Amino acid sequence: MPKFFAPDCDLRCDTVQLTGENAEHLRVLRVRVGENLTLCDNRGTDARCMVSAVSAGAVQLEVLERMPVRGEPTVAVRVYAGLPKGDKGEIIVQKSVELGAEEIVFFLSERSVSRPDKKGIAGKLTRWNKVCEAAAMQSYRGKLPTVRWLPDLEAVLLEASQAQLAAFLWEEAGDLSLSGLMKSRSGFRTAALITGPEGGFSAAEAASARDRGIPPVTLGPRILRCETAPVCALAAVMYETGNME
Amino acid sequence: MPKFFAPDCDLRCDTVQLTGENAEHLRVLRVRVGENLTLCDNRGTDARCMVSAVSAGAVQLEVLERMPVRGEPTVAVRVYAGLPKGDKGEIIVQKSVELGAEEIVFFLSERSVSRPDKKGIAGKLTRWNKVCEAAAMQSYRGKLPTVRWLPDLEAVLLEASQAQLAAFLWEEAGDLSLSGLMKSRSGFRTAALITGPEGGFSAAEAASARDRGIPPVTLGPRILRCETAPVCALAAVMYETGNME
Repeated sequence: MPKFFAPDCDLRCDTVQLTGENAEHLRVLRVRVGENLTLCDNRGTDARCMVSAVSAGAVQLEVLERMPVRGEPTVAVRVYAGLPKGDKGEIIVQKSVELGAEEIVFFLSERSVSRPDKKGIAGKLTRWNKVCEAAAMQSYRGKLPTVRWLPDLEAVLLEASQAQLAAFLWEEAGDLSLSGLMKSRSGFRTAALITGPEGGFSAAEAASARDRGIPPVTLGPRILRCETAPVCALAAVMYETGNME
Repeated sequence: MPKFFAPDCDLRCDTVQLTGENAEHLRVLRVRVGENLTLCDNRGTDARCMVSAVSAGAVQLEVLERMPVRGEPTVAVRVYAGLPKGDKGEIIVQKSVELGAEEIVFFLSERSVSRPDKKGIAGKLTRWNKVCEAAAMQSYRGKLPTVRWLPDLEAVLLEASQAQLAAFLWEEAGDLSLSGLMKSRSGFRTAALITGPEGGFSAAEAASARDRGIPPVTLGPRILRCETAPVCALAAVMYETGNME
């Protein structure tokens, strides 16, 4: 059953109406009267609905059943990714949303090759948020994650240091692993995972993280691509916190 | 330092020679005399080498230092993936190699949309093995994984049931998770992870797995794309077995 996020709908009503992009999307899917779908109000409720009328630009639905969302993990994880080249940002967004991230934040780091201007960043954010919404619908998330931009690593470290568990993923981190770090901080409910672009982070960037109290950690001896590292780290966090059960 | 697999080289010698595709690859990289690179004999030894001569079709290297490979996990995992559409097979191969899989095996399952003939399969295998080698070099694996084809789920189940831990990933598996299964089988050294194509597995396929003693398990409440599920499951296995440290 397809899922749609409809934050403007009051799912306590017996009848709701979808307009705008959601209605357009349903038109493309050729939805018909009598079909069922799930609406999520992005505030903790999913509703099984039946299409009762389709007109130009609007779809009317009858709310059949309400239930608490079940796709949300018990830990709120932010993925901070150094801006990569090409479409790797989209891969990071899509996979992070599937695996349960609350937010994906991109930033320019020392070795980021792509250096978009303000307009370029705005364009990327629009595209990333579309990918984010599609992934959230498809993976049956209970809350639509967001994609944001921060200017640089300094801003990232400042924000990430507020999380109960913050990790700076660095292939040269030596003996401390994300696994070891998590096991020493059991019970964390918020996490920040900072990963680099192609070529990773510099020693100076790792030193800045350490200065902010965010330990550089490894994911083991294999060198991961910049779009694989956040996915792997996020999977590890979800596993460790019992959110893959 | 770039890494190359050279199974034909005897790294106990002081001087070795690369020819064929490796030599061609180095020519494209414009390697020069005096540069260092790592050769792996695919039998447990990495060697730091220095380029001593470059000629048409051959590169000669001096072996400077030998060391045991360090990129290999302590658990041998086979990923069995129901053939997906488009280039998702390549993503599965690339990410599985990075995360430490020993072997990636594709097969036709009930909901596989793509149904290549023998020639098509051979072409895919050639391409997948190229992706596999590139990923193994880049992620600094100590052994080149392989990519294989099996005709159907029945053949997969027969083979996978030999592993000390075998899991059939199914979103409708109910209460048993991969995590729970792993915790009940501690100490396993071989694992088989079976994942479906777009649309997942049917109830009949899940029943076949159960009949073979391979339990259907979930990866949690979020629905993962067919190329994300094997990556997530593999990360979970590596995490649980201490191979992300």
